[in-house]
Amino acid sequence: MTFPRKDLFDLPAGVIYLDGNSLGPLPATAAARAAQVVSHEWGQGLIRGWNDHGWMDLPERLGDRIAPIIGAPAGSVVVGDTLTIKVYQALSAALSLRPDRRVVLSDSGNFPADLYIAEGLLGLLGETYELRIVAPEDVAGAITDDIAAVLLTEVDYRTGRRHDMADLTARTHAAGAVSIWDLAHSAGAVPLDLEGCGAEFAVGCSYKFLNGGPGAPAFIYARPDLVEGLRPTLAGWLGHAAPFAFEQGYRPAPSVSRLRVGTPPVVQMSLLEEALKIWEGVDMTALRARAIDLSEIFITEVAARCPDLTLASPREAARRGSQVSFSHPQGYAAMQALIDRGVIGDFRAPDIMRFGITPLYLDEGDIRAAVDVLEEVMTNRLWDDPKYLERKAVT
Amino acid sequence: MTFPRKDLFDLPAGVIYLDGNSLGPLPATAAARAAQVVSHEWGQGLIRGWNDHGWMDLPERLGDRIAPIIGAPAGSVVVGDTLTIKVYQALSAALSLRPDRRVVLSDSGNFPADLYIAEGLLGLLGETYELRIVAPEDVAGAITDDIAAVLLTEVDYRTGRRHDMADLTARTHAAGAVSIWDLAHSAGAVPLDLEGCGAEFAVGCSYKFLNGGPGAPAFIYARPDLVEGLRPTLAGWLGHAAPFAFEQGYRPAPSVSRLRVGTPPVVQMSLLEEALKIWEGVDMTALRARAIDLSEIFITEVAARCPDLTLASPREAARRGSQVSFSHPQGYAAMQALIDRGVIGDFRAPDIMRFGITPLYLDEGDIRAAVDVLEEVMTNRLWDDPKYLERKAVT
Repeated sequence: MTFPRKDLFDLPAGVIYLDGNSLGPLPATAAARAAQVVSHEWGQGLIRGWNDHGWMDLPERLGDRIAPIIGAPAGSVVVGDTLTIKVYQALSAALSLRPDRRVVLSDSGNFPADLYIAEGLLGLLGETYELRIVAPEDVAGAITDDIAAVLLTEVDYRTGRRHDMADLTARTHAAGAVSIWDLAHSAGAVPLDLEGCGAEFAVGCSYKFLNGGPGAPAFIYARPDLVEGLRPTLAGWLGHAAPFAFEQGYRPAPSVSRLRVGTPPVVQMSLLEEALKIWEGVDMTALRARAIDLSEIFITEVAARCPDLTLASPREAARRGSQVSFSHPQGYAAMQALIDRGVIGDFRAPDIMRFGITPLYLDEGDIRAAVDVLEEVMTNRLWDDPKYLERKAVT
Repeated sequence: MTFPRKDLFDLPAGVIYLDGNSLGPLPATAAARAAQVVSHEWGQGLIRGWNDHGWMDLPERLGDRIAPIIGAPAGSVVVGDTLTIKVYQALSAALSLRPDRRVVLSDSGNFPADLYIAEGLLGLLGETYELRIVAPEDVAGAITDDIAAVLLTEVDYRTGRRHDMADLTARTHAAGAVSIWDLAHSAGAVPLDLEGCGAEFAVGCSYKFLNGGPGAPAFIYARPDLVEGLRPTLAGWLGHAAPFAFEQGYRPAPSVSRLRVGTPPVVQMSLLEEALKIWEGVDMTALRARAIDLSEIFITEVAARCPDLTLASPREAARRGSQVSFSHPQGYAAMQALIDRGVIGDFRAPDIMRFGITPLYLDEGDIRAAVDVLEEVMTNRLWDDPKYLERKAVT
């Protein structure tokens, strides 16, 4: 596949979409698939859909489509729930692998929800547990041998700063700890090699670069050699070895399916399946190279034409994910002014304007046109308008 | 509303659907709504959908639609995740309310997944905790003052046997314990009075009698006076008081929203919203009366015409939910033969044939026609065919 492939998406006219890092656009085949699932599979099939339309296997089937995108072997990934739940599962499993240790290490660049869920789990486990949070640049030096698990998001949601996954995983293992990677801003954005780096667990979401749709389910990876020893804390019906035997006691499935929990959201998963079909033809290395080219153009042009904006992302491409962020004291209002003019990025508190670089449906012309609008907004202070200053519920 | 209202559903021709207790049928407006959400709200709106189309409030908005169906006040119910996750949240919250007690009481008629998830949670909390399982008829006598929480499913998924919620909740409170009700087979099936019975927590799913579609999300109720004191174990991003402030520490929302976890499945929730609109016009007492009438016809006719079938449900209507079950050694094959002839019920191991009685879209003619086919299958042993004996993945 050469990029872009705008034909694979239904993109609205008059929009340059630089927010695929938050919610990917609609794949061209997804609406028809949704209609088929709703009207035919559910409407006509009713309960028979579970057998006749393969609903029950969706979590594993989608996991096997995500696996090559994140450098994982077939059978090691399962889809379901939300990212928060998957972090909880991974962290509780990780802690059970190191029962003699009590510290979880994370960083202040992590997505806050990952810290919240860790806080919640450790609170349940008792006061002897500690969530230790350091600055992103201090993580490498903080992986000491009292640590049970290192829980990190590879690509920072605000700045796009990218951790060195191979290096930090190796350090984690050298300290005898378990490595958990949140790939929310990585999957579909950068080449990944989970198998190569040897991390025990990874989680991620599918509505960003993977284009699964609003509220598309999350995924979890467990290193294959660990699966058999994992006793899931969220001991769910569909993670049971024989769900339809209705045994009174929990007996986990022999595969990564034990990390399934409840009934899969069939419609949402079917939309995701359509989105994942696109990735069959994507060479992640080529995609990444193109994303870097586009990002360099964007950064260079903005630096030249929008002097009020400060690059908040690392300048070095290898240290960035597939987003470029700028800070500006009026970043929120400036982003509203941009969106009003058809250039859609988003804002993250306190002052970050984020732009996702997604070569699947963006080309150089889009990037240059976006900078034109950005320059117009910043030079003419178009953000200085009451209608842009009022905060919406979701930023 | 008078029953049935077949016009409110897209029911396939040639089918009598007696499995609405497992997966409700497609509401007539749902396909159009799905198309609108996918093509317009997501496709055209992209990330703007979160603000422009009210996606972020779906969990509370749907909760407020479910509340009157289960006898709960507005603002006490929130929708999301799966039933398994909601049981986990309710049980961990319940245990935190009784930190000095260590026993969870449930019964062998509970849906096994509720027992699995309790087992998983108690395993995490440590060996001092006990999951005590008694026979359904022994629950009342087993509510002793060492019990922290009583976790029961009101209507048995196999037999339809219905617990006396008011009585058992009162006994639970008399013993100083916390009451959690799983309403999976109750919501939309029988009149409920959560507020009146005073139970602390309730959970349920929306794809059965509520017709939300395959994998529709679950719901959780927390008694309003308790909400402010609840520290959620699943401390999720969207249960935070200010999700978009991206604070490093968790601070729960001041309402039942603190029981939200991650990003809501927007498409699935929008389908559910269409389904819930139907319930605005439903008088649960009238619906229940009609369900009992239809059930009585069904039971009486089957007793007269299918002597090989043994009623597995209580004979007394007040002690049943809205399903009628029969046992037969070849129940699985007999159900396949029925389905093959357009009468759709389902099977639960080891020998239970289940039939959901849903007056929203079933009338007396349907019930009598279903018995005609059932009689034909049983009298002529039509189940004795290799094609019906082979088990499918999902029973």
